[in-house]
Amino acid sequence: MSGSTLGRLFRVTNFGESHGPAIGCVIDGCPPGMALSEADIQHDLDRRRPGTSRHVTQRKEPDAVEILSGVYEGRTTGTPIALLIRNQDQRSKDYGEIAQQFRPGHADYSYWHKYGLRDPRGGGRSSARLTAPTVAAGAVARKWLKEKYGTQFRACMTQLGELPIAFEGWEHVQGNPFFAPVADVQRLEDYMDALRKAHDSCGARIRVQATGVPAGLGAPLYDKLDADIAKVMMGLNAVKGVEIGAGFASVAQRGSVHGDAITPAGFASNHAGGVLGGISSGQDIEVSIAIKPTSSILTPRPSIDIHGAPVQVVTKGRHDPCVGIRAAPIAEALLALVLMDHALLQRAQCADVVQVPPPVAANYQ
Amino acid sequence: MSGSTLGRLFRVTNFGESHGPAIGCVIDGCPPGMALSEADIQHDLDRRRPGTSRHVTQRKEPDAVEILSGVYEGRTTGTPIALLIRNQDQRSKDYGEIAQQFRPGHADYSYWHKYGLRDPRGGGRSSARLTAPTVAAGAVARKWLKEKYGTQFRACMTQLGELPIAFEGWEHVQGNPFFAPVADVQRLEDYMDALRKAHDSCGARIRVQATGVPAGLGAPLYDKLDADIAKVMMGLNAVKGVEIGAGFASVAQRGSVHGDAITPAGFASNHAGGVLGGISSGQDIEVSIAIKPTSSILTPRPSIDIHGAPVQVVTKGRHDPCVGIRAAPIAEALLALVLMDHALLQRAQCADVVQVPPPVAANYQ
Amino acid sequence: MSGSTLGRLFRVTNFGESHGPAIGCVIDGCPPGMALSEADIQHDLDRRRPGTSRHVTQRKEPDAVEILSGVYEGRTTGTPIALLIRNQDQRSKDYGEIAQQFRPGHADYSYWHKYGLRDPRGGGRSSARLTAPTVAAGAVARKWLKEKYGTQFRACMTQLGELPIAFEGWEHVQGNPFFAPVADVQRLEDYMDALRKAHDSCGARIRVQATGVPAGLGAPLYDKLDADIAKVMMGLNAVKGVEIGAGFASVAQRGSVHGDAITPAGFASNHAGGVLGGISSGQDIEVSIAIKPTSSILTPRPSIDIHGAPVQVVTKGRHDPCVGIRAAPIAEALLALVLMDHALLQRAQCADVVQVPPPVAANYQ
Amino acid sequence: MSGSTLGRLFRVTNFGESHGPAIGCVIDGCPPGMALSEADIQHDLDRRRPGTSRHVTQRKEPDAVEILSGVYEGRTTGTPIALLIRNQDQRSKDYGEIAQQFRPGHADYSYWHKYGLRDPRGGGRSSARLTAPTVAAGAVARKWLKEKYGTQFRACMTQLGELPIAFEGWEHVQGNPFFAPVADVQRLEDYMDALRKAHDSCGARIRVQATGVPAGLGAPLYDKLDADIAKVMMGLNAVKGVEIGAGFASVAQRGSVHGDAITPAGFASNHAGGVLGGISSGQDIEVSIAIKPTSSILTPRPSIDIHGAPVQVVTKGRHDPCVGIRAAPIAEALLALVLMDHALLQRAQCADVVQVPPPVAANYQ
Repeated sequence: MSGSTLGRLFRVTNFGESHGPAIGCVIDGCPPGMALSEADIQHDLDRRRPGTSRHVTQRKEPDAVEILSGVYEGRTTGTPIALLIRNQDQRSKDYGEIAQQFRPGHADYSYWHKYGLRDPRGGGRSSARLTAPTVAAGAVARKWLKEKYGTQFRACMTQLGELPIAFEGWEHVQGNPFFAPVADVQRLEDYMDALRKAHDSCGARIRVQATGVPAGLGAPLYDKLDADIAKVMMGLNAVKGVEIGAGFASVAQRGSVHGDAITPAGFASNHAGGVLGGISSGQDIEVSIAIKPTSSILTPRPSIDIHGAPVQVVTKGRHDPCVGIRAAPIAEALLALVLMDHALLQRAQCADVVQVPPPVAANYQ
Repeated sequence: MSGSTLGRLFRVTNFGESHGPAIGCVIDGCPPGMALSEADIQHDLDRRRPGTSRHVTQRKEPDAVEILSGVYEGRTTGTPIALLIRNQDQRSKDYGEIAQQFRPGHADYSYWHKYGLRDPRGGGRSSARLTAPTVAAGAVARKWLKEKYGTQFRACMTQLGELPIAFEGWEHVQGNPFFAPVADVQRLEDYMDALRKAHDSCGARIRVQATGVPAGLGAPLYDKLDADIAKVMMGLNAVKGVEIGAGFASVAQRGSVHGDAITPAGFASNHAGGVLGGISSGQDIEVSIAIKPTSSILTPRPSIDIHGAPVQVVTKGRHDPCVGIRAAPIAEALLALVLMDHALLQRAQCADVVQVPPPVAANYQ
Repeated sequence: MSGSTLGRLFRVTNFGESHGPAIGCVIDGCPPGMALSEADIQHDLDRRRPGTSRHVTQRKEPDAVEILSGVYEGRTTGTPIALLIRNQDQRSKDYGEIAQQFRPGHADYSYWHKYGLRDPRGGGRSSARLTAPTVAAGAVARKWLKEKYGTQFRACMTQLGELPIAFEGWEHVQGNPFFAPVADVQRLEDYMDALRKAHDSCGARIRVQATGVPAGLGAPLYDKLDADIAKVMMGLNAVKGVEIGAGFASVAQRGSVHGDAITPAGFASNHAGGVLGGISSGQDIEVSIAIKPTSSILTPRPSIDIHGAPVQVVTKGRHDPCVGIRAAPIAEALLALVLMDHALLQRAQCADVVQVPPPVAANYQ
Repeated sequence: MSGSTLGRLFRVTNFGESHGPAIGCVIDGCPPGMALSEADIQHDLDRRRPGTSRHVTQRKEPDAVEILSGVYEGRTTGTPIALLIRNQDQRSKDYGEIAQQFRPGHADYSYWHKYGLRDPRGGGRSSARLTAPTVAAGAVARKWLKEKYGTQFRACMTQLGELPIAFEGWEHVQGNPFFAPVADVQRLEDYMDALRKAHDSCGARIRVQATGVPAGLGAPLYDKLDADIAKVMMGLNAVKGVEIGAGFASVAQRGSVHGDAITPAGFASNHAGGVLGGISSGQDIEVSIAIKPTSSILTPRPSIDIHGAPVQVVTKGRHDPCVGIRAAPIAEALLALVLMDHALLQRAQCADVVQVPPPVAANYQ
């Protein structure tokens, strides 16, 4: 409480406002003895960074991370790891007009009613900038999970606005600013340019996957693995929907189809998305999230000010025409943080469970 | 830890197995002084009860709740409220064959890998029977929220298998076993009968709504209201997807449309689903969940046993051909538990916030 | 929240009032696969039970425990273990007069101000009866710790009122109703009889010890092992002081004496009481607690009623002339619960730590 | 987890090592709208600072605090408040010899067994330097409690080594480096000088008091106010004992004396120390703690190194000959943090409790 800590055993406390002096996080509960350096974390932050393409926010933040504690002679000590990122490129004057108004689709109105005041600069605490510390913490979790279990995380865009994006291969994701799994993104570029001209925005659908996941993660009843995944994903700025495996398509499926059959060679399908009864089965974890269109657009929107008088709101400044474009690395980090927390929880309670055959079922390809 | 407690301030600890002596919960943190009796709780349990129509599980459980503590002379004392429900109609012999096998789509496989053993009778801890204590606790939360804020909860089915169900009115929901908001459910009945004959099952989509919600509930960053809603919903047995407001339809929307405009008379739309920036805006909270088809069907399914040898699994016994048919009252209870927890959290941190105009915007109808 | 849950990974939620239908607890997080039966738990409850000597409360409660969940075919499943104890010998009429008054030294006054109401029968939630579920949960923890590490717990009385009790040997503790480590308790019996005649009460000092404790338990900064021990002990009814190792005698010691020297054969002393820097060192854990005299005495005491008018309070009924007489088994249980929780926490974070020499230092005898 | 967070609603996460780049904390859950500046916090840090007298550690740290988040235009926003203190005067070369050895009375041995490694410089995470962020957070809590309830905190030394210090008046505490409540501290100065010459150290006893405490704080059973107070105090570096009210003197008291009588004018005594049944009564909270003698002394002590070979350890460097001399402001901060947390908890659960007469009893003087 109140709200800025994620996890129970691998605990990440996030602090900062978009235009404050600094943002960062404190990780408590990291196992000791793991090699860790700023470079390990910086890599993930750079993937997320604004200003890396013309389709995203033009705020120039180096997002250089500094490790303030918890690492000694290059190894984690088991004590809290504090990560600091100084804000540098805040342009507060871009937000001057907004302070008295409630921008439609933004958190202004609800923050006003909750706190009675708000830091309006750059969205304050509600800004997507606060995903940077989350990604930083995620980098630590990813490193540990990879070293222990070979777990890996990747995400890609599967829909941009109303354009579906067919999956050609993971190898394409790094080669375009959309994190799209396709070789040619020209139609996506054209779509975005048209949107920008129209002073409007669109949403996106992101697929997030984890491979090499050990079976047994998840704590029924209420702290199930998929429940915690849904929580972190829905908590990500602008997310309005979360699916695991077949997701909403499950509604129209038959039980004789949806239930993944098991053979001695492994699972025959993966409608479950890697989670059965709230616990990982060893299959790939497959998650899909829906990101709403950016609320900050140049098109004037009707709203009211703090006195209740009608106004037209135009959100100037540097904004992503599609927030979802930067979501992929953040979603990967969030999934890693959940798996990390549950991996430690599983160690706590079930360290003595002798893994009896059958061996983990092979993944459906 | 490990996993059976929901909430931080209105804390519900759930215990029990499907075929054990009893199931129940302990509620810690309920405000004192509220009138409470078994009847208040029994009402909600009866709505959930199996055996109330021919389309649901034919297990006959009276689900009579007993209050063991926390209530004195008809009022809550502020001390833990323990609720007990004795199991009576367990037919363990129906499950004898299953103990050595992993039923596809069920938790058997993942529980095996997590705990190294499992109570196979009736699904043990993974059974939907354990939603009864959740509903019981939800009844307490609903009572308090209604008395304090006038908050009310309701849910209905919006899709059965591949059949969409158009919304005619809330008044129809209580009149049919599907919780469908329509006057005539004959086609749904026919659909279910055909399914039963085919020894198969289907999924369902449920809409859950809360009205009279105070603004300001939700704790950014990680304990946002919609994040916690997603968690409890995804944690409900058989749920594979959760949406808030426009949900996955947001992807294809434009920012100029999705962002709900505000006028002095109130919000002009509710694509946000009542949550902005993770905090309630005062608008109705609108949630939609996807429930997968029942995994327990009479059609044989390929699987393996605990030695890894291939088997054909037939899950006999008394099973819902559509689990989603009983989900509505459970989803209402879950939403109530989340709002209750956040209402107390808001009191903790923001009791002194003076609500400055503008007044809460009226809901879009 | 609010207050009735102990532990983070081995979580015990306690419910019940002294004169309600039942008391009990739910244990969440117990490792799976351990043999457990009612008999394992009943043994510890019987040691605590009222009515086992003429010096303690004459309320006759069998305190028969029933396991409602979490055990299957004699082994823990890893799911919550609910333990129920029905109240039988409540004599509510003994408390009729008290309901409008605040008994000095009791919780009445503070409960009134906190909750605005209270269950006055038998002290309601503030009664020492609620230590029974704690002892029941402690039995489960003790069993696991003994099987895993050979850890054992024992406690004895070291002072009764103003009478110091010299330590002769642990073997005497079970042979007298005082849990005193001496062969002859006649002077203690005489002291108590005189106290009873005088309608008064006295306090007690209890020593609690754990042997066979693994090194490494405790989580600096704030969840140190000794900090958590202090918490559970001070939280026990009637406790007003807690010491670890040399305790308050440390104040007058020199650093050259207090700091326990280490030799290749082991520690040369144990002023630390088994905890260094908040983490167990492998030495015996030594705790001492101060229990205040029973507040319920037949001597009239000045007080006020709920209207503020002066009254003379006489607490009739069946009360311990020295509450501390039953404290030993409860203190053992509390220490076990703390060590259990920290053992799981250590597994969570440090499972991969390779124990490098030197070997655990031997205990100072 | 793991261990570096204090509180549930007013949550303080502490990070840093003695010789790392920085130390600090993140406060989550502070109510919004309170005026707060670095100056408010710096004041308390200066009282704690090393190098302010010749009897304490001669490390020169300005301990300048920087607010990184959670404050906007001079008022708390309700979002996390991150406080940063850069380390400046680390002299790592003083610690070179110690890295391979376990200093008696220190955490070295237990940290080694817990984590498998440790940062040896200046005690790493186990250093009392980490009380600085605690004091910083305490300053925020003190401000809020003072503004809301008029609560105030003060502490003084009541015993130095074997010298008892009689209480003359609170007004003397600020006038000497011992926080002693006496006009003339010459004998204390002489005592310390003799100790320093002897290359040894002594302990101290500290009294901590809170006045203007609202009744009703504390959450039975396990999160009682005195239990949480005991936890934070025992968790403070070098503390070996905690008492509330009459403390260990309660053992020899009679119930007819210990139980504080109540009159229409107020309580007639305060043996309870302000806590009844684990809940504040409105009386002054009185706590006493025992601090052990500093383990770091120039007198050689026998120990072993990491290979188990015997060594003589001499802890050079700049160390307090009596750690307890700086404890008073830290103990005040800790008590404030506990009361703050419980004040919010009380608001969460009992905001609607109508305070019925009688009025809060006056304090015994």
